[in-house]
Amino acid sequence: MKSFEFWFDFGSTASYLAWTQLPALEAATGATAVFKPMLLGGVFQATGNQSPANIPAKGKYIFADFSRFAKRYGVEFNMNPWFPVNTLLLMRGAIALQMKGDPRFKDYCRAVFNAIWVTSLNMNDTAVASQALVRAGFDATALIALASEQATKDALKAATQTAVERGVFGAPTFFVGDQMFWGQDRMDFVKEALQKAR
Amino acid sequence: MKSFEFWFDFGSTASYLAWTQLPALEAATGATAVFKPMLLGGVFQATGNQSPANIPAKGKYIFADFSRFAKRYGVEFNMNPWFPVNTLLLMRGAIALQMKGDPRFKDYCRAVFNAIWVTSLNMNDTAVASQALVRAGFDATALIALASEQATKDALKAATQTAVERGVFGAPTFFVGDQMFWGQDRMDFVKEALQKAR
Repeated sequence: MKSFEFWFDFGSTASYLAWTQLPALEAATGATAVFKPMLLGGVFQATGNQSPANIPAKGKYIFADFSRFAKRYGVEFNMNPWFPVNTLLLMRGAIALQMKGDPRFKDYCRAVFNAIWVTSLNMNDTAVASQALVRAGFDATALIALASEQATKDALKAATQTAVERGVFGAPTFFVGDQMFWGQDRMDFVKEALQKAR
Repeated sequence: MKSFEFWFDFGSTASYLAWTQLPALEAATGATAVFKPMLLGGVFQATGNQSPANIPAKGKYIFADFSRFAKRYGVEFNMNPWFPVNTLLLMRGAIALQMKGDPRFKDYCRAVFNAIWVTSLNMNDTAVASQALVRAGFDATALIALASEQATKDALKAATQTAVERGVFGAPTFFVGDQMFWGQDRMDFVKEALQKAR
């Protein structure tokens, strides 16, 4: 069974756009996306990279760029008014569910991505995030408790460090074996790499 | 007659790759590329943006990324061992020829792009640059004198400032009317914009 890794952070606009295109990529290649939660802020700190939004001219442009891709993909996309979103708790929630093998891991990812990039919620606010998770059918209190366990914190830190060690400097980042591809705009190269892979 | 603007700096790898694809873009759209020389270093200084090569992990990746595009495009590409190239004199030469309406302006662009990104010459060295220009049929001494005139210096400075005022933060940057597109990897969007334009 072929697979590829999808390293992401919910707070990354490009990660959201890429995530919307994963089903099409999986269908076209017969490969499975292995979700790899990481903390983009930690990646930035370790590599010296930064959000394009930190450069005013780039930040202004990049929204137009993302909107063009959203239109091309035919997906909903609204710039989150609370950007940048502190995703520490949200990413911990993701890795905690994944570690437990919780079958709702992907539902959680959908709920969080959509809350930020479609519904424009202020996911910095734990109360708002809790309500969004409850609406998506989660026990928010239990999930936040799980996300706050030391083992969860350590797991996200370790995952982020692994990403950096493998050369990741931004999100999303894809791996097909050892081949790394950065950006939602490189999924055609990921597709080609998967089609060549045995 | 439809046209689009191509803002570039010879020292930008992505500008080179984009330049190789301009004929195909012109053929597909019936539009003409208007070459717009600028000094990328000046754009970086004005906007706070920087070369991806300044972030070690990004610099390492980006060469693989450019190589993938070169392969896709079927064009020669060799990373220049003297990167980053100080292109001040080279860009002044371009804008000087363009201002004079010299019919060899595009030959000059070809000679310089190829010297850096195909032949891997050290174009920081005026002697090496002169030899390359002589081989391409230019009177290098006259060209360097022209590039060093105050009017030339002012013109490049003004062009770079215009770019920044229009929102440019990197190279290459395309304009179709007021629509801005950054990167050699956005030429498909430029094509779409041109096909929609009347």
